[in-house]
Amino acid sequence: MTPLAVGQIPAGVVTLADHEAHAHSRLGSNAWTYFSGGAADEITLRANASAWSRHLLQPRVLRQLAGGHTRVELLGRTLAHPILLAPVAFQRMAHPDGELASAYAAAAQGAGMVLSTQASISLETVAKAFLGEAQRGPLWFQLYLQHDRGFTRELVQRAEAAGYEALVLTVDAPTSGARDRERRAGFCLPPHVSAVNLEGLRPPAPLALQPGQSALFDGLLATAPTWDDVAWLQSITRLPVLLKGVLHPGDARQAAALQVAGLIVSNHGGRTLDTAPATAAVLPRIVQALAGAMPVLVDGGLRRGTDILKAMALGASAVLVGRPYAYGLANAGALGVAHVLRLLRDELEIAMALCGCPTLAQATPELLFTPD
Amino acid sequence: MTPLAVGQIPAGVVTLADHEAHAHSRLGSNAWTYFSGGAADEITLRANASAWSRHLLQPRVLRQLAGGHTRVELLGRTLAHPILLAPVAFQRMAHPDGELASAYAAAAQGAGMVLSTQASISLETVAKAFLGEAQRGPLWFQLYLQHDRGFTRELVQRAEAAGYEALVLTVDAPTSGARDRERRAGFCLPPHVSAVNLEGLRPPAPLALQPGQSALFDGLLATAPTWDDVAWLQSITRLPVLLKGVLHPGDARQAAALQVAGLIVSNHGGRTLDTAPATAAVLPRIVQALAGAMPVLVDGGLRRGTDILKAMALGASAVLVGRPYAYGLANAGALGVAHVLRLLRDELEIAMALCGCPTLAQATPELLFTPD
Amino acid sequence: MTPLAVGQIPAGVVTLADHEAHAHSRLGSNAWTYFSGGAADEITLRANASAWSRHLLQPRVLRQLAGGHTRVELLGRTLAHPILLAPVAFQRMAHPDGELASAYAAAAQGAGMVLSTQASISLETVAKAFLGEAQRGPLWFQLYLQHDRGFTRELVQRAEAAGYEALVLTVDAPTSGARDRERRAGFCLPPHVSAVNLEGLRPPAPLALQPGQSALFDGLLATAPTWDDVAWLQSITRLPVLLKGVLHPGDARQAAALQVAGLIVSNHGGRTLDTAPATAAVLPRIVQALAGAMPVLVDGGLRRGTDILKAMALGASAVLVGRPYAYGLANAGALGVAHVLRLLRDELEIAMALCGCPTLAQATPELLFTPD
Amino acid sequence: MTPLAVGQIPAGVVTLADHEAHAHSRLGSNAWTYFSGGAADEITLRANASAWSRHLLQPRVLRQLAGGHTRVELLGRTLAHPILLAPVAFQRMAHPDGELASAYAAAAQGAGMVLSTQASISLETVAKAFLGEAQRGPLWFQLYLQHDRGFTRELVQRAEAAGYEALVLTVDAPTSGARDRERRAGFCLPPHVSAVNLEGLRPPAPLALQPGQSALFDGLLATAPTWDDVAWLQSITRLPVLLKGVLHPGDARQAAALQVAGLIVSNHGGRTLDTAPATAAVLPRIVQALAGAMPVLVDGGLRRGTDILKAMALGASAVLVGRPYAYGLANAGALGVAHVLRLLRDELEIAMALCGCPTLAQATPELLFTPD
Repeated sequence: MTPLAVGQIPAGVVTLADHEAHAHSRLGSNAWTYFSGGAADEITLRANASAWSRHLLQPRVLRQLAGGHTRVELLGRTLAHPILLAPVAFQRMAHPDGELASAYAAAAQGAGMVLSTQASISLETVAKAFLGEAQRGPLWFQLYLQHDRGFTRELVQRAEAAGYEALVLTVDAPTSGARDRERRAGFCLPPHVSAVNLEGLRPPAPLALQPGQSALFDGLLATAPTWDDVAWLQSITRLPVLLKGVLHPGDARQAAALQVAGLIVSNHGGRTLDTAPATAAVLPRIVQALAGAMPVLVDGGLRRGTDILKAMALGASAVLVGRPYAYGLANAGALGVAHVLRLLRDELEIAMALCGCPTLAQATPELLFTPD
Repeated sequence: MTPLAVGQIPAGVVTLADHEAHAHSRLGSNAWTYFSGGAADEITLRANASAWSRHLLQPRVLRQLAGGHTRVELLGRTLAHPILLAPVAFQRMAHPDGELASAYAAAAQGAGMVLSTQASISLETVAKAFLGEAQRGPLWFQLYLQHDRGFTRELVQRAEAAGYEALVLTVDAPTSGARDRERRAGFCLPPHVSAVNLEGLRPPAPLALQPGQSALFDGLLATAPTWDDVAWLQSITRLPVLLKGVLHPGDARQAAALQVAGLIVSNHGGRTLDTAPATAAVLPRIVQALAGAMPVLVDGGLRRGTDILKAMALGASAVLVGRPYAYGLANAGALGVAHVLRLLRDELEIAMALCGCPTLAQATPELLFTPD
Repeated sequence: MTPLAVGQIPAGVVTLADHEAHAHSRLGSNAWTYFSGGAADEITLRANASAWSRHLLQPRVLRQLAGGHTRVELLGRTLAHPILLAPVAFQRMAHPDGELASAYAAAAQGAGMVLSTQASISLETVAKAFLGEAQRGPLWFQLYLQHDRGFTRELVQRAEAAGYEALVLTVDAPTSGARDRERRAGFCLPPHVSAVNLEGLRPPAPLALQPGQSALFDGLLATAPTWDDVAWLQSITRLPVLLKGVLHPGDARQAAALQVAGLIVSNHGGRTLDTAPATAAVLPRIVQALAGAMPVLVDGGLRRGTDILKAMALGASAVLVGRPYAYGLANAGALGVAHVLRLLRDELEIAMALCGCPTLAQATPELLFTPD
Repeated sequence: MTPLAVGQIPAGVVTLADHEAHAHSRLGSNAWTYFSGGAADEITLRANASAWSRHLLQPRVLRQLAGGHTRVELLGRTLAHPILLAPVAFQRMAHPDGELASAYAAAAQGAGMVLSTQASISLETVAKAFLGEAQRGPLWFQLYLQHDRGFTRELVQRAEAAGYEALVLTVDAPTSGARDRERRAGFCLPPHVSAVNLEGLRPPAPLALQPGQSALFDGLLATAPTWDDVAWLQSITRLPVLLKGVLHPGDARQAAALQVAGLIVSNHGGRTLDTAPATAAVLPRIVQALAGAMPVLVDGGLRRGTDILKAMALGASAVLVGRPYAYGLANAGALGVAHVLRLLRDELEIAMALCGCPTLAQATPELLFTPD
């Protein structure tokens, strides 16, 4: 394995927003469009971040803070902190080291990692790098149910064999969203980047539509995953299965009925359905609907330690961040990813201290200030 | 008939907003002012679009989507999708092919068309083009009740003879709005464009006002249409009559008492009364007041497939778009109009899929996310 | 008397906002600062206008509109329309013809006029010009209670003698507001402009403050008018007395107890207390508190005929506009003032027609659309 | 002692906002960053000011105003007005005269002063300057509980000896906030400025963290002050102790149980926890929780006399301003600080007069206009 490039945090980059601005100037417009863009008018993309910002924290003073920590329990493990890397595809577009750099950085920072099915480095290579770190967090594999269920089964088996500890089934993207920014810019994958873990996947059978039929409904969606497929996936793996992209309490309850291992409240980072609600607005409803039946994670727009504390106060068991670490990766490889994680964790600790909240178990809705 | 010009969709035009921006650069300022402008400060014009954007959609996941479709029933017909072209006057200002191009494009895309009384191509020519397409949607004729009722009767008879299937009586413009942008720019119709279907209409008798009388109230409005005129119109035609421009539940109920065939919730695209409410805000009240007594359509600010899905969820039977197809027409003639319709339909399908809503019959208010 | 200058409406000026923009380029910065500025951060100044804009009108259709008109009853007279010129000081800073041009224009347009105590033309000259017009509206005189009550009494007698029909006592300015824009710009009256009607007024006695005393409370405000002074004013004049600047229901009730002739809901155009509420927000409370005991007028931020219709719907008996006619005056002398008044009246008629409201007696709160 | 520099108020500086803008151009970027910056995205910093601006005042008219005044009672003294200088560190970065200039100006203007522990001039020097003025307000000393409690005790004894009349214990900063603007700019204290009152303070023992331990929770916060330390502080001083930074009613009640002398509702000027609520939003809750048990002061974003009147109406006993006087200091030394105080007081008097409120004892919540 080629040694990782030695990056350097650019001067003046001290927040995730700084990483984003710097990555904008550093990435080519093709990659920038891919990583930064959302669906349609990007209303949901912007709403994700602003929803966390608009929540207010309620400081408390003079409490006993000694011995505080950021540890959380998740699926039977104790994590150093509740931050995971969300699945982000094609990371070699951001940096030659791609997912490998992210894995090393996450493991070193005690963060969990969810590898994308569309990773640009093999899942086995990433697992080997990640699992070698002693203080590592959990390693999960993100899955789309491909039209070819046999291939899907093999992919699951590879993930199991490589040491992944859970499967994250993405359920909010039976079709791509209206990625207008990408279409406008004529986005295409550069030649050196591909979904290496999907090599060998048969292309879907060509469509033979009748007049009046819809390429979408009668074509692509004819094999879109349903609740039955979740049960099928559970039946072919010994790994816990989490669902990513649940935004309705009714769907959460249905997931609970299937005894999935956890949910990730997500709108795919605003990349699928524009004008879907911000995840911060949805999270409390899902938490309430589940009443503790399973852990609920959340992603989308978390850019500050204060955002993370708010998510935890609203009932999240852990959080995922996506674009920010891709920007860190673009800026400084593994070091950039580690820096993003370190910033978030430092900010989280400060926010906890200033809210008089020494452990995340004490983060309840009362941490949020409700305006009159 | 001259063959249609062969247009081309400009590079980078992948949304209706792109069409608008491109048309701005392509149309002369005179035509741009006419098509894009609204009344007074254009508050209602902007509110129309932002009201749809602000509504949030509630995604659902893992539902059975195969066999979904966008078909709707309207006035006894099945339409391939719920999108109609709203009446837009003087389309030859946008493109030499004018309404003819719009008609071909709409028919090819399965969209309905409502021809404006103030079309710049004869209603017979347009009907001939439109009705020849096998997969066409409905063809309706928009009507102002002219001061000369005899002329109006003849116009209705011409529309019937030409094959129009319904009359759309515009009721929200007894007088023009304060079209300040047009007045400021000194807008005037170019010499080659006129309301050809109104040729032969006698000008109104000159006013002879007493001191203290109002040119508006004592002049123009003395012959403005009333509810009695709706009954008169119904009495002289075998076609169903819809009313366009109804914004108050009481007026909707009065229309129901007259057994009109349908309503179009509209504020004339923000071109008449500024600070009238956005149609998205009014639609649910009209739907509720009518309790299914007749179909309710809506126009105004619909720019995305998600907007259309929201309108259907709020009880619309179908929707109309106006300015966007005029911009498509300006950009690429018939091809531009077809592109606009195709974009909307594709986006609608994606939105339905991502909301777990395979048919529009399943689009109910629960599709909308209500913030706390 | 010098004949009035013959002005010309500049091309492209078709709204009050256009008049404002044009006046900005035409007036020197000294006069612009004076006429356009407000108190402190000008929050109230902006809120006045935006509050009217934010109210929505509810269109009605197909109603009988023939014979509609804008006439209103006010203090025993029938006015052609409900628009009056608010008192604006020092109008010769805007145009050499000053208040004289405003008077001719108002009278010609059937508008009432409230002359400022601080007019730059003598009250007798203005009255003579105004009262000569057959179709004129009411002529009122605005009054501050000067520290010198004897002088005040003489001023009242002059106004009576000159034919003024009511006195408007301004009660919201016992001290000047924080006119920071003027102070920052070093505003001063040009040499040819002065408060000619106050010639002969003795300056107040010099202050002899004790340490710890306030120049404001122990100086200026020691003679500020109180409710007792209102009674005194009523006792020395045969004219009806209106109070301008009332913003609290309790104060309105106290005015009713004194049987004043009417109230003007006003925050002095945002020129006194910044962060005072917009008049549109206050008007309904005053109307409700008075329950018809006296007419309630309103000024502040009315820039459109729709604004006027909203004010009438909220219970106003008439409205006043200030800055807009000063801008019209700056742009084209008397013709500019007349143009401003004509625009407002035309817009009002259009708004009435589009709301299905042929007379202002039918303007009730139901004309306003209340969002969910 | 060197005589103070003779400053001059720059032309056009007539508000606190003008002072800020001018100081921006006058201070080097290092000092500007320090004084103007807040935590993280500065959401709370901006919210502080906008929360006061958004409150509306309810004018009253024609009331008896003679003999009005701005006097308030606070901790057994009568103050000429309710404005105090908040603790601001390192004022010699703003101007060579530093805290000394502020002290002279405050004393001359009858304002109270709270000297920062991190003052750049010795507390004895400041006290000597301030206490010499006859019309001076109260002089308080702001305190952080240092890790070295012995040093803290000595500091308290020095403050007592120098004549300080109360101790203000800052409780909202057990750790610094995420001062990203400072970090981005590489802020550092210039060589001639230091916390002279902390000379001799032993640095904290070096940390010896176990793996997995947090430098924050297991290091710095291990000695962060708790409620017990408040009791300790009270036990070692004869001075009244106020707590600064209380934002939760529960904490306010706990402070009352300890019989502290007063509270300052503060979020540290938005410099510690970003997205903490604006102090204007918190103040009424604290006032209500305490029900008069002790005086409640407030700082944060007060930039206008109207803001101060609103704070008093919401139950504050007095207010503190911070950044504005640092800007005045930067602009014109002692004269600039005095100018800032004079502006605020003049604006407060005007606001009182225009609200018909001659004394602050009459400032109740009814002074605020509540929108529908």
